[in-house]
Amino acid sequence: MEAAARRLNGVAVETPLLEDPLLSRAAGRRVLVKAECLQRTGSFKIRGAWARLSAEPPERLAAGVLAVSSGNHAQAVAYASARLGARARIVMPADAPAMKRDAAAAYGAELVFYDRAGQDRDAALERLRAGDRGEAAVFAHPFDDPLVIAGQAGVGRELARQARALGATRAEVLVCAGGGGLASGVALALEAAGADGLRVRPVEPDGFDDWRRSLAAGARQTNPRAHGSICDAILTPTPGAMTWRIGRRLFGGGLAVSDDEAAAAMAAAARRLKLVVEPGGAVALAAALFRGAELDPAADAVIAVATGGNVDPETHARLIAAAPTAP
Amino acid sequence: MEAAARRLNGVAVETPLLEDPLLSRAAGRRVLVKAECLQRTGSFKIRGAWARLSAEPPERLAAGVLAVSSGNHAQAVAYASARLGARARIVMPADAPAMKRDAAAAYGAELVFYDRAGQDRDAALERLRAGDRGEAAVFAHPFDDPLVIAGQAGVGRELARQARALGATRAEVLVCAGGGGLASGVALALEAAGADGLRVRPVEPDGFDDWRRSLAAGARQTNPRAHGSICDAILTPTPGAMTWRIGRRLFGGGLAVSDDEAAAAMAAAARRLKLVVEPGGAVALAAALFRGAELDPAADAVIAVATGGNVDPETHARLIAAAPTAP
Repeated sequence: MEAAARRLNGVAVETPLLEDPLLSRAAGRRVLVKAECLQRTGSFKIRGAWARLSAEPPERLAAGVLAVSSGNHAQAVAYASARLGARARIVMPADAPAMKRDAAAAYGAELVFYDRAGQDRDAALERLRAGDRGEAAVFAHPFDDPLVIAGQAGVGRELARQARALGATRAEVLVCAGGGGLASGVALALEAAGADGLRVRPVEPDGFDDWRRSLAAGARQTNPRAHGSICDAILTPTPGAMTWRIGRRLFGGGLAVSDDEAAAAMAAAARRLKLVVEPGGAVALAAALFRGAELDPAADAVIAVATGGNVDPETHARLIAAAPTAP
Repeated sequence: MEAAARRLNGVAVETPLLEDPLLSRAAGRRVLVKAECLQRTGSFKIRGAWARLSAEPPERLAAGVLAVSSGNHAQAVAYASARLGARARIVMPADAPAMKRDAAAAYGAELVFYDRAGQDRDAALERLRAGDRGEAAVFAHPFDDPLVIAGQAGVGRELARQARALGATRAEVLVCAGGGGLASGVALALEAAGADGLRVRPVEPDGFDDWRRSLAAGARQTNPRAHGSICDAILTPTPGAMTWRIGRRLFGGGLAVSDDEAAAAMAAAARRLKLVVEPGGAVALAAALFRGAELDPAADAVIAVATGGNVDPETHARLIAAAPTAP
């Protein structure tokens, strides 16, 4: 993890741990928000993508980079590849937000789209692999890779230090989970930092709670659906093999929130914290606001990671306008 | 300034200096944004208000605190007073954004409203002074006070260090100016830090460019109107006496932007930086985006302070939707 942390210098930035008195009042407990939506490329994904790609020798990068992503990893891979002088080709769902597609393209990536409901994502990737230098290209997995997990761990390393400085030593750390790369990286970093009072709990959208059900069952479960939530960034069907081994050992129980609750958390983030947070990035804050009964009553704070802010302004405004009561 | 900096510990937070590659590409130069909208109470105002009020002895605070404010200083005074156990009474324009009124009230302040177009603000203040313990109360001036300026200087102190760390040593520092407390505090801090390559330039809305005209004329000028811009936070009629003495010595020439340009900067801040910035807080970024021809061509960056984010979500969405092309 230390080697990955060094490589992040100059690319990822340290994001602040924010607090608002009226938000905490509304939640009935002290709420701290790790504003990872302020990260370069608008989400935490650049940490892992840079850790992964910057570790490759130039001769491998020369064959290009391949990735699949719902959009945040795509932007991160596109940006990191551009910084490293590598050509990136990325498979994305056709219904990804325009902002995610546009930014990935603006960073110089070549995008290939598939239909989330029908066409097979893996088939699209295989076609790229079979194409020009595809076999030799570096595949940047979105989560199930030790270097990616080590990169995302930077969130936890910063968070442990920042929470201590703010006097929050016993807290639940709510982290949204798709494949679980961020949540498992944060958990490893908290363990390494000796932050014994901080425990990661994964948060997911209702109906896409594979982590929650997997942790309850003690074995990996799969979601019945692949689409149908506003939380486009975290609809991964099942925990990763590597992230599951970490999560089952270190995570507390999972939490799930509705799309309406995620939208209300987006509104709260905008009103009280002045942050634009995308739906998938807001589920942890939603759990802090709406799942108080499931949180440790003895904790002195709840820490929510706001993982990304890549949402089209029109969608942001529409979801906030329709959101139920928010602080 | 050092004493004020020490007192800020635990109340104001260090805000990040953010950068987005696509925003810089759109501006045609490197743009760094000091995200002061992430400050406690949603604007930089808490720095000055806390520096001022925390310096008062308890026996003076016991008589309460009086202030006049368009809304951001009001929230800061209300919050600081509550932390210090003092009763705050604040004169605000009746057309201040609901979020500003609601938050000031939620922090426990008693609010008195006046009509920006008609009723005299000073008369409302005098009525408070004549009321219960009003004569003995601490008056928290929004800008023309050495302690307030010293508090706002914290923005410049952080900025000098952060800009150096990012390799921006010759840059214009764009700061919105109402009374000029923030801009003059930042200029003093940059001077004290020996940041010779960083120069403050005040930014205002078109038609409310008293600073720009004052600097050009070498004497304080007054705006013809008191209202009629979306930039509600920075419609102060004329530079302060104290801030003018600082500004005329240290500021570069003033800049002015249209309301449409301010709205486009709000859109850019939301899309690219994931920040909710209020209209008056966005004029510096607007100048970075739309006044490139008036900026130092030899600078290696332009630094814009995004001073506040206290805007109603409906207003934010409406202004962004109607904004002209933004990055």
